[in-house]
Amino acid sequence: MSASLIPTALSSLDTPVALIDVPRMQGNIQRMQHRMNRLGVRLRPHVKTSKSLPVIQAQLAAGASGVTVSTLKEAGHCFANGIDDVFYAVAMAPGKLKQALALRRKGCRLSILTDSLAAAQSIVAFGQQHDERFEVWIEIDCDGHRSGLATRDAVLVEVARVLIEGGMQLRGVMTHAGSSYDLDTPQALQAIAEQERRLCVEAAERIRNAGLPCPEVSIGSTPTALSVQSLKGVTEVRAGVYVFFDLVMHNIGVCAADELALSVLTTVIGHQQDKGWIIVDAGWMAMSRDRGTQRQRKDFGYGQVCTETGDWIDGARVTGANQEHGIITLADEDTHDITARFPIGSRLRILPNHACATGAQFPDYHALDAEGQVHIWSRLHGW
Amino acid sequence: MSASLIPTALSSLDTPVALIDVPRMQGNIQRMQHRMNRLGVRLRPHVKTSKSLPVIQAQLAAGASGVTVSTLKEAGHCFANGIDDVFYAVAMAPGKLKQALALRRKGCRLSILTDSLAAAQSIVAFGQQHDERFEVWIEIDCDGHRSGLATRDAVLVEVARVLIEGGMQLRGVMTHAGSSYDLDTPQALQAIAEQERRLCVEAAERIRNAGLPCPEVSIGSTPTALSVQSLKGVTEVRAGVYVFFDLVMHNIGVCAADELALSVLTTVIGHQQDKGWIIVDAGWMAMSRDRGTQRQRKDFGYGQVCTETGDWIDGARVTGANQEHGIITLADEDTHDITARFPIGSRLRILPNHACATGAQFPDYHALDAEGQVHIWSRLHGW
Repeated sequence: MSASLIPTALSSLDTPVALIDVPRMQGNIQRMQHRMNRLGVRLRPHVKTSKSLPVIQAQLAAGASGVTVSTLKEAGHCFANGIDDVFYAVAMAPGKLKQALALRRKGCRLSILTDSLAAAQSIVAFGQQHDERFEVWIEIDCDGHRSGLATRDAVLVEVARVLIEGGMQLRGVMTHAGSSYDLDTPQALQAIAEQERRLCVEAAERIRNAGLPCPEVSIGSTPTALSVQSLKGVTEVRAGVYVFFDLVMHNIGVCAADELALSVLTTVIGHQQDKGWIIVDAGWMAMSRDRGTQRQRKDFGYGQVCTETGDWIDGARVTGANQEHGIITLADEDTHDITARFPIGSRLRILPNHACATGAQFPDYHALDAEGQVHIWSRLHGW
Repeated sequence: MSASLIPTALSSLDTPVALIDVPRMQGNIQRMQHRMNRLGVRLRPHVKTSKSLPVIQAQLAAGASGVTVSTLKEAGHCFANGIDDVFYAVAMAPGKLKQALALRRKGCRLSILTDSLAAAQSIVAFGQQHDERFEVWIEIDCDGHRSGLATRDAVLVEVARVLIEGGMQLRGVMTHAGSSYDLDTPQALQAIAEQERRLCVEAAERIRNAGLPCPEVSIGSTPTALSVQSLKGVTEVRAGVYVFFDLVMHNIGVCAADELALSVLTTVIGHQQDKGWIIVDAGWMAMSRDRGTQRQRKDFGYGQVCTETGDWIDGARVTGANQEHGIITLADEDTHDITARFPIGSRLRILPNHACATGAQFPDYHALDAEGQVHIWSRLHGW
């Protein structure tokens, strides 16, 4: 998660590499931060997208307050690099409490998450045993897509009470409208964003109406954060993939083509002229197996193909992928003379379906700055 | 790619981890090696599946001759660990010749691959410039699934001639019947295996009939290697995923359920009782996004769920996956009382669709030996 000191030129890179267009990334960071500033809430970026310190530092420099993480490894790494307000936003497994305790004992303001009485009781028992007042969020299910307690679930107030009476600190309620990924009109996105806000604020009010403190309301996803019209009652927003955007977000309609900041630089290694196939050295090991655009308005296969300098080649997609082979096909009317137009050794950039998944395939990013210099930014892998 | 010295107990592991059942792995290695011995050919395992030295060493100890790799990073790592016969079986990009040269200059018997005149010419030009006699294979397309020259392509003999007259060593011809992954009957598998053999042997004969030396014929995939009835004219077989097997291979019909050697150990972190969902800490970051069984005879979602000790729970599959959340559903008749049967904190094992893709999500394997001890085997990541 550190940055290299010696920049290199794009042309000297071996492929495949994961390229970050740094000016685009900075633009994305500014766009989201300004929006949250205007709406009057703190932004707590989800760093599971990049898992890379220079990216996270750019988000904090722009005004973000703390970070959200998907693993305790990310938490530890952020804390080791001076970031102490860390929300581990996956329901806490009892077996991971020891690791969470160790981080808190070092001074990390790590907060954790639960959505059940059983898990809340295990947090209380462990906290009491070790004399630790864990900061705990309760997860609310605002759209039925995954985890969380329904706003009206009778257990909700009981979980809050168990935590508070057990000596823990209830930090607040949180939710994530993951179903926003299935939508693609401004109207539908605004509606799910309002639903995410309303159901989470109502959950906080239920707890408060029971006489229990529930200071914070944390919501968010990139599509809802960019669509929501009011954040009344919300104290912070979490979002992740906005930092790079990707083809899934483009299909949803929350980013323009020239905001996609992550791509895979690849080299042409062969052709099947009869079939119109261009074979490149970015297979699924580079792109990931994510096919997130498969059921969206436009299916980009394993990615949208661009020139080496980043211009979209309309209709050119990675339509097949083996481990280290990508198969690119062009638009139907456009298959002549591919060996001359895309000779062996020439380079292309491929925009990924899902930046979180594609980034994870690489030990580091190659960050291309406005001056055309490349910096190596390492990223975390594993748990 | 090294093994840890201090084994630990399974129960002490944080999840998710990628578990190797070592006795099963050893059985798989023996099974393939014995088959190749009986058929009278050398086995050159494809190490792209494991990318882990202890696994590769077990394959070599059982009788394998050299290795196949999918990246030059794997080649370098194998060579640094004393394995010097390495076949880089992805068509050579001109930009990677420098790295290949460096390996050969250190003493690695690295062989490379081409399927075009343009690439063969670039190999010759670079080899002559650096006074290096590269060992080169020509890729044959035996089933139209990806790269390679058709056996009857007029360019085939020309590529051989360009390489040989340019001072390179033609090592032989190679092919990979990747379309075998789409089949699932012994008859169809035997037919594609015979086609793979025949078309590659015929390609070698075409080159020989032109008066050019073509010493070797290398074919293989796990399904064809386990189905082929005769290997007449073949000098070596390449196969990779057999070392672990996976659900895709199980659907194809080339392995039994009790031969699947790779699984992901996971912890239950929540439930949605109304929906019958068990939420675990193995999402797509752990399982990969590979949905290889989606169009096979049985769709296992993101994986087949087993007990912590590895017994299949019939009908239990990972039917949804977010980055760090897996959603397990049970067979229809079996959804009662899931919070008691699979309490928070309990553990499960998940068998993956595709071992190569799932393994790649982890920095290391946890190798469980016959005595129940766990050894950490690191694996390569990136290029």
